[in-house]
Amino acid sequence: MKVDVLAVGTELLLGQIVDTNSSWIGEQLASAGIDTYEHRKIGDNLDRVVRCIESMLETADAIIICGGLGPTPDDLTREAIAQAMGVPLERREELVDWIASLFGGRGRQMPENNLRQADVPVGGDVIPNPIGTAPGLKCEFNGRVIYAVPGVPYEMQRMVNEHVIPDLLERTGERAVILNRSLKTWGASESGLAEMIARQVDDQSNPSIAFLARGIEGIVVRLTAKAPTLEAAAALIAPEEAKLRSTLGDLIFAVDDETMEEAVLSRLGARGWTLGVAESLTGGLVGSRIAGVPGASAIFKGTIGAYATEVKQSLLGVTSDEVVSAECAREMAEGARRVLGSDVGISVTGVAGPDSQDGAPVGTVWFGLALPGLPVEAVTARLPGDRERIRQFSTISLMNLLRMRLDALA
Amino acid sequence: MKVDVLAVGTELLLGQIVDTNSSWIGEQLASAGIDTYEHRKIGDNLDRVVRCIESMLETADAIIICGGLGPTPDDLTREAIAQAMGVPLERREELVDWIASLFGGRGRQMPENNLRQADVPVGGDVIPNPIGTAPGLKCEFNGRVIYAVPGVPYEMQRMVNEHVIPDLLERTGERAVILNRSLKTWGASESGLAEMIARQVDDQSNPSIAFLARGIEGIVVRLTAKAPTLEAAAALIAPEEAKLRSTLGDLIFAVDDETMEEAVLSRLGARGWTLGVAESLTGGLVGSRIAGVPGASAIFKGTIGAYATEVKQSLLGVTSDEVVSAECAREMAEGARRVLGSDVGISVTGVAGPDSQDGAPVGTVWFGLALPGLPVEAVTARLPGDRERIRQFSTISLMNLLRMRLDALA
Repeated sequence: MKVDVLAVGTELLLGQIVDTNSSWIGEQLASAGIDTYEHRKIGDNLDRVVRCIESMLETADAIIICGGLGPTPDDLTREAIAQAMGVPLERREELVDWIASLFGGRGRQMPENNLRQADVPVGGDVIPNPIGTAPGLKCEFNGRVIYAVPGVPYEMQRMVNEHVIPDLLERTGERAVILNRSLKTWGASESGLAEMIARQVDDQSNPSIAFLARGIEGIVVRLTAKAPTLEAAAALIAPEEAKLRSTLGDLIFAVDDETMEEAVLSRLGARGWTLGVAESLTGGLVGSRIAGVPGASAIFKGTIGAYATEVKQSLLGVTSDEVVSAECAREMAEGARRVLGSDVGISVTGVAGPDSQDGAPVGTVWFGLALPGLPVEAVTARLPGDRERIRQFSTISLMNLLRMRLDALA
Repeated sequence: MKVDVLAVGTELLLGQIVDTNSSWIGEQLASAGIDTYEHRKIGDNLDRVVRCIESMLETADAIIICGGLGPTPDDLTREAIAQAMGVPLERREELVDWIASLFGGRGRQMPENNLRQADVPVGGDVIPNPIGTAPGLKCEFNGRVIYAVPGVPYEMQRMVNEHVIPDLLERTGERAVILNRSLKTWGASESGLAEMIARQVDDQSNPSIAFLARGIEGIVVRLTAKAPTLEAAAALIAPEEAKLRSTLGDLIFAVDDETMEEAVLSRLGARGWTLGVAESLTGGLVGSRIAGVPGASAIFKGTIGAYATEVKQSLLGVTSDEVVSAECAREMAEGARRVLGSDVGISVTGVAGPDSQDGAPVGTVWFGLALPGLPVEAVTARLPGDRERIRQFSTISLMNLLRMRLDALA
């Protein structure tokens, strides 16, 4: 089974919007074990969309078309599919009723254009859209299938996950569900991870094990199981996840959608500890990420972005002028705890560049950790990249250090 | 002239990397007045890449291929172009010498694979790569042109700007250069801007005027002039830019690549004033963006991310428990100035959600501004969106307010 993807929209060709939909669909197809060989982007031109559909169906068993399902005249996907199939569009009464209900009932004023969204190529099926106004389409044609989904990412993702992928799997005769479990790691390279779990990866086909690089957010080790039911898939994943966890240990900081800042806050919350931060080169980035988590206020007191040396001294009690040092990191962590009145104080100071500082090369960073009942600690690292990457790496490294210390206490 | 784009790489289909290159190229083509109708992504498979090139050349006058020019065996673009042209590859001695020099001279050990980067389809030309190891290609074939550029964005962008676009313009017989000037605006909607300058946009063809939405970074009004020389293009742009500036006034915060934080820092630097920040719902985001500018340390003292109410009170001298208020914003701005020892203090406090606070609905934000010689001021706004957007809008709104106050002083 080979499924290709077509994104429709002139704004995609002109670079006004980056097409992230086809990448996302490609990832879902891959994790469902379905081949995808070619993705295309094309503008809002009826003839060209029709020719593109015809051309893609010469080699694909199915195509997924994103976008062009809206109510405006440049939304041409419905017409293009009908022309490619050689059938007319028919207006579906049940869709007219549904669209009217979105506008507050059939008696109410409804733009005529919106009724276009009730048009379906003859012989085609509707894919319901529970969170938007554009219904999706599923049209079988000469033994091939054309799916059409909206360009709005949330609506598209829900239709693909709930309708398109299950329908494709059923067509392969598998009648299977796919379950993913993402173990999010930080602190090891992809090749390092691959070496640690090489044998397990080689021995494994269901669940399969894949690495996904997530830049400054680390590397995800993804388990993908295919089984007749969700329960059966979960049962396949459990022993492999346990094996991975025993090998990877505290490299794993979170699972699935949990972020590093959420991982830190949940561990602090479990102990009833509050957090204060002092940061130099990151200038507030650590605090900003932590404050981004809904509910952070129960735990997060604040951050002191002590960018200038005299602020580190006057506000945080740093005693030296040498601010890229273990001493400074420790004093900043203690200062954050004292000034912000928190149980835990953490800090980061270092050289983001472009110039070196106090004789320390660009990328030199010191982290400070002040936890209840433990001596104040300083840890150093030499981080790679340009100014922005060093600031980002510093931020996640500091949060990860705290996460590891909290786990070690348990 | 119709130029299409092909991005090569299995990782693009699997969603491991989002193809941003073709969007970027599409934007450059559009701003050079060159049509682009179709972009494709395809995996690292020789037969499929060859068939894809052949198929795209049926309708395009030229194609730009990104990626697949590296040294490893899955880098197949050179072979694919040669096969599509029906010619063999030949190893170019001057490229062998150049690649050898990158490895420290011909005598040194050089992986055999790297020599593959010296292979060029017979009849093809080399596009030099001053910042990477992969040379680009320009191959004419049956009256059409195939350009191949690396997948690494910086290298690709430089080759497209310096070689591909000029070569395409020369082929159109225009012998023109394209000059863009981006006026970055904040505070008006796209439809609002469009209304303000509708007549000028309609009357204008060279330079053309386009709107580019940049999300939380505002809307860019881009002037694009085509002329025989850069000087002539600049002369076309100057009067139109002056007209736009007189209409848009202080909606324009920066030009071309300058960011809002750079705009703020350069204005403060011109007066010799230092800056301190106090922030609540943004938790350090304002400070983080300002500290991200190289050289910020001469001006930026730091930020107090006073997330908890008691920190606003103990550290910044806020007197009330009602922290979503004009009074609190003013006290925070004054507190930032006092505690951080800066000339200027700015602040933001408000409700990022998901829950309302002190009876103020989600999105309610107060900004404080304390400038030398002026009474401390508070400004409110009701910002749209979810928690993250409200935090981001608050950050850029605060910087923009300061930018406007500094301009008004001038």
